Amino acid sequence: MLADISAPEDLKVLSLAQLKELAAELREAMIKVVTQNGGHLASSLGAVELIVALHFVFDAPRDQIVFDVGHQCYAHKLLTGRFAAFGSLRQAGGLSGFPRREESPYDAFGAGHASTSISAALGLAGARDLLGPDRQVVAVIGDGALTGGMAMEALNHAGGLQKNLLVVYNDNRMSISHNVGALSQYLSLKMTTPEHLHLRERVKKILEKVMPSKGDRLIRRFQRAEEGLKAFMVSPTAFLAAWGFKYLGPIDGHDLGRLIEAFKQVKNLKRPVLLHVVTTKGKGYQPAEDNPQAFHGVGRSKLTPHAPSGAEPVALAPSGAAPAKTTYTDVFGAFMVRAARDDVRLAAVTAAMSQGTGLDNFFALFPERAFDVGIAEQHAVTFAAGLAAGGLRPVAAIYSTFLQRSFDQLFHDVALQNLPVLLAVDRAGLVGEDGPTHHGGLDLSYLRLLPNFAVMAPRDEHELTAMLKFALTLDGPAAIRYPRGPITGRRPLPGTPLELGRAERLRAGGDLTLAAIGQTVWPAVEAADRLAALGHAVEVLNMRFVKPLDAAALERSARETGKIITVEENLVAGGLHGAAAEALAPLGLPTILKGLGLDDQPVPQASQRQQRAWRKLDVDGLVQAALELLAARRPPAAEPPFDAQAQTKVSALAPTQTRNASPALNADPTA
Amino acid sequence: MLADISAPEDLKVLSLAQLKELAAELREAMIKVVTQNGGHLASSLGAVELIVALHFVFDAPRDQIVFDVGHQCYAHKLLTGRFAAFGSLRQAGGLSGFPRREESPYDAFGAGHASTSISAALGLAGARDLLGPDRQVVAVIGDGALTGGMAMEALNHAGGLQKNLLVVYNDNRMSISHNVGALSQYLSLKMTTPEHLHLRERVKKILEKVMPSKGDRLIRRFQRAEEGLKAFMVSPTAFLAAWGFKYLGPIDGHDLGRLIEAFKQVKNLKRPVLLHVVTTKGKGYQPAEDNPQAFHGVGRSKLTPHAPSGAEPVALAPSGAAPAKTTYTDVFGAFMVRAARDDVRLAAVTAAMSQGTGLDNFFALFPERAFDVGIAEQHAVTFAAGLAAGGLRPVAAIYSTFLQRSFDQLFHDVALQNLPVLLAVDRAGLVGEDGPTHHGGLDLSYLRLLPNFAVMAPRDEHELTAMLKFALTLDGPAAIRYPRGPITGRRPLPGTPLELGRAERLRAGGDLTLAAIGQTVWPAVEAADRLAALGHAVEVLNMRFVKPLDAAALERSARETGKIITVEENLVAGGLHGAAAEALAPLGLPTILKGLGLDDQPVPQASQRQQRAWRKLDVDGLVQAALELLAARRPPAAEPPFDAQAQTKVSALAPTQTRNASPALNADPTA
Repeated sequence: MLADISAPEDLKVLSLAQLKELAAELREAMIKVVTQNGGHLASSLGAVELIVALHFVFDAPRDQIVFDVGHQCYAHKLLTGRFAAFGSLRQAGGLSGFPRREESPYDAFGAGHASTSISAALGLAGARDLLGPDRQVVAVIGDGALTGGMAMEALNHAGGLQKNLLVVYNDNRMSISHNVGALSQYLSLKMTTPEHLHLRERVKKILEKVMPSKGDRLIRRFQRAEEGLKAFMVSPTAFLAAWGFKYLGPIDGHDLGRLIEAFKQVKNLKRPVLLHVVTTKGKGYQPAEDNPQAFHGVGRSKLTPHAPSGAEPVALAPSGAAPAKTTYTDVFGAFMVRAARDDVRLAAVTAAMSQGTGLDNFFALFPERAFDVGIAEQHAVTFAAGLAAGGLRPVAAIYSTFLQRSFDQLFHDVALQNLPVLLAVDRAGLVGEDGPTHHGGLDLSYLRLLPNFAVMAPRDEHELTAMLKFALTLDGPAAIRYPRGPITGRRPLPGTPLELGRAERLRAGGDLTLAAIGQTVWPAVEAADRLAALGHAVEVLNMRFVKPLDAAALERSARETGKIITVEENLVAGGLHGAAAEALAPLGLPTILKGLGLDDQPVPQASQRQQRAWRKLDVDGLVQAALELLAARRPPAAEPPFDAQAQTKVSALAPTQTRNASPALNADPTA
Repeated sequence: MLADISAPEDLKVLSLAQLKELAAELREAMIKVVTQNGGHLASSLGAVELIVALHFVFDAPRDQIVFDVGHQCYAHKLLTGRFAAFGSLRQAGGLSGFPRREESPYDAFGAGHASTSISAALGLAGARDLLGPDRQVVAVIGDGALTGGMAMEALNHAGGLQKNLLVVYNDNRMSISHNVGALSQYLSLKMTTPEHLHLRERVKKILEKVMPSKGDRLIRRFQRAEEGLKAFMVSPTAFLAAWGFKYLGPIDGHDLGRLIEAFKQVKNLKRPVLLHVVTTKGKGYQPAEDNPQAFHGVGRSKLTPHAPSGAEPVALAPSGAAPAKTTYTDVFGAFMVRAARDDVRLAAVTAAMSQGTGLDNFFALFPERAFDVGIAEQHAVTFAAGLAAGGLRPVAAIYSTFLQRSFDQLFHDVALQNLPVLLAVDRAGLVGEDGPTHHGGLDLSYLRLLPNFAVMAPRDEHELTAMLKFALTLDGPAAIRYPRGPITGRRPLPGTPLELGRAERLRAGGDLTLAAIGQTVWPAVEAADRLAALGHAVEVLNMRFVKPLDAAALERSARETGKIITVEENLVAGGLHGAAAEALAPLGLPTILKGLGLDDQPVPQASQRQQRAWRKLDVDGLVQAALELLAARRPPAAEPPFDAQAQTKVSALAPTQTRNASPALNADPTA
């Protein structure tokens, strides 16, 4: 039946029984593809009936549905002409795992990050009211995303505007344990505060006063009424009414008939409505239903039922699969546990990502120093600044792409006040199948703008540990960015110790310099070794820091090789390349400085390997780029400096170490 | 008496009558200094009793008080050892207008931007609970700042943690008309929704059923009880209980005795408490009390009672003062009104800054297309993206420093989706007395990272209007940044028409190039003219765009003059300088490229004129910097390009216009 649905109007002729069958087929299609390609299966399985009912009652694309985060939209994709292409989900050239405006007119607004849907839907409603056509605008938002401040800003604004807007609150409960604070508890009817108990007492007293002589019958009657009052009080109704929303629900989000009825009812209310729908993440996936315990307890190699908005999805591993490879995240997590034992001031902050950032053990072992603030990156950073101002050494572990949410807080609360907050910036660089919304492609560029910050990236897991230790010795703020995925597995390098703002030379050579940082360093070394076999002496610098930058090392290279390629898994603009260009600019040297990294063209979804190849960030790409630059005419020999003043500055930064280039200085013994 | 208060402990011996006298003295001191220096008088006048009571009851600096935004903190400064220095408020080298950790141990956490105080205070409370000492942590937050999402994130988290934390909700009501949405209405006891009326009916029905035979006496008794119930229902108690907070209030924020009593009561509650205090902005300022109408209606040359968190303060002009000078803000506002008449799709979005951004008239004339979202910059940007996705042409007017809050939304919702949102970035560059937290010093750097964006800055008011028109013809997102303060007053220049990514040459010359943008362009021209009188032929480029950058113009200059100084009121790192350095880097030219602008050292509070002089961004500074570079040895003549491939790229960008430098090309007729 699903294969015959080419557009949502094909649903409208189906009976309820047929729709239920369709829901089963949707689940089947998802499970088949996601077990193959990876993806956000649990969220999407939970939203099947919800989406079927939405498309049954409303008329997309005239009616517009905005999905928050977008993890739950697979059924929507399958029902809107993308069934045939669904096997390409999250593959290079295939369907995106998220709603994307350029993919389909049914995707009214793109997503990826959390808490944006109400804002976007309200904007669409505002445009509709001015330009037409008459249409329903629907935002679908989960309980996790509702902890994000911008969702509350939007609720607040929407309640004030009183536009026709439907917010479907997809309460999948599974994430409640991960949700923080009172809002989700309130909406889950779990609240029993002293105030409410007090109210109950007050009602009883009134009752006793006004009818002292009446018998039990009346008391019972009133108790029922009192229950009604209390239910009203503690229900979200009053709460959401306060925000200007009509509240409906909660209803069973897997009861298709009930959902259809509710959407039909809402269709006639031309005002802000929040419909509370309770769903079960992973609903209908047999392995989970057969063995819910195992399903809930699986690690990152299996489906993660608690996966917060941003956690990247993982394919379901067949039981008995090889254990997952150790990741940078694991190395960070292990360090944190060790460091917490040594320093009672160490605290950890995460924004609904304690698992994704490797802090599970820390949270289990040091709960009093572990803070999960919910999906609330802005608060996370200023809260960490407060912890630091109070004398702790907070480490805030946040994915690079989500840290963008905290840019102002990083500047205003951390950097300007020079507070010792350490950012563990996970998933920095290319992230693979999640695609353009999720790359950690900007952090070197925006973190470099912040005063007082030290910004660094390790070449491998050993340097990650060293940098974490080092950063905790600094008096001010610092950020360490590291990639998604497995560690290198290299043996430790007897390398140069970390020194603030100093690069490390891993290969010496006079023909060309590869100035790399982070996960691109070892590929650069491999490229240099391959180029050495071709007769080219290529220097490799592990820059380690973009701030402070080792300008002296770059100047030396500029004078010695005259040809430099910066290499980074970050936007070239403003990143290591930008920093290097700025450092060399005032010297007036005839150096050719090129940059490999990301540019304005978003890197599409694909494997990380493929993405790195596209951007010439793998060994082949680096060799090719180096050969091209090597073929260019060598710039004239460096002139003496033009500017005495500039020279003074440079001297202050100049390295004390020898300038005699010896090949394979600090060579990797494992290479 | 005030002169004898050297620290808060000196308050503790005073009687209530003496404290009241002290409050009067505090007001006097503030009015005297602020009418001289400018400042946030209204907010600070409103918080006098609140702050006196806080310092009377609590023991700062052991107890920690975190002020949100910080506008209201003058009484705090006067009571914490800064009376003698208070005359230097907001002056170069003087006291900051905001709390600053480096200024005093009584300033527990710095501020400037809105909505951060609860996050920071919760962090301090978290540190206290781990490290001690036992202390009360207090956040003081206004009704405006509470519309910011991060404040709600923090409330949510704080309610969950149940730490000992006092939030003083300073409800000054004056800003309620500017506050948006339901939250502030709720906390102002203004809510009467259908749900509540319904409840009232239900209570009555219960009453009628259970006591049909009882007389009016009981009905009246119950009506009183019913009022109590309703008051409870619609009061913030239930609402805040939902967030895990104990709610107290509202109390009169000018009744010292009542405040002291309330704080003493709170002192013993070791849990999250929100104390609702109602204050009057400007309280105690005689001109305002004598003539509240004029006081409320004054323009930006007088005290602005509605000033939202971020609006810069203005000194009280004596009546009959000269009318305020026309500002860039005014020019923007006038353009918006004209443009709205021509294009029904034009909409305006602001974040509690309709007056500050010059949109007052637009809001009055086109209310249906005017959206003030409250202090909620994140939502503002994604809401604007939604409006654009719905077919409108939204213009979001936000101060540069506050736009930092929207960095992720600009990337994720606007740039990645290439939606035609136009950002009017007001107060870009140095802002004067508000100092480091308020400079618009980063926008060129962070906006340049966003795909699809055009980022520009006008040399004067005429180019601002031209750029606004131009930007609205673009298919994608754009940003125009312009300074705080008066327009140049120059006659229009018969200059070159705007073309995407093309610079304008305002002076020709072969000795050196000044590549300027925005408000630094005319000072650069003046500097060139002065240098011409000294015999130096200095080229001046008005870069207009940092993205796309006119790389061809810079390359031509690099080849012709070999010495370039970029000039911008923005961080040199990643800004115009960064963009120029990146553009020239691959060419291998021996060009000396220097950058004038901001650096990592925050520019302290002072007049804008002084700040520009400090950063060498005035004519004198530019002349001096140019002379220094002119004295440097000229780089060797440009070599032919080293790289055939690079040459191809350059040709594609090369200008078609003549390269013959004629002095004073496009000379300003008004110069």
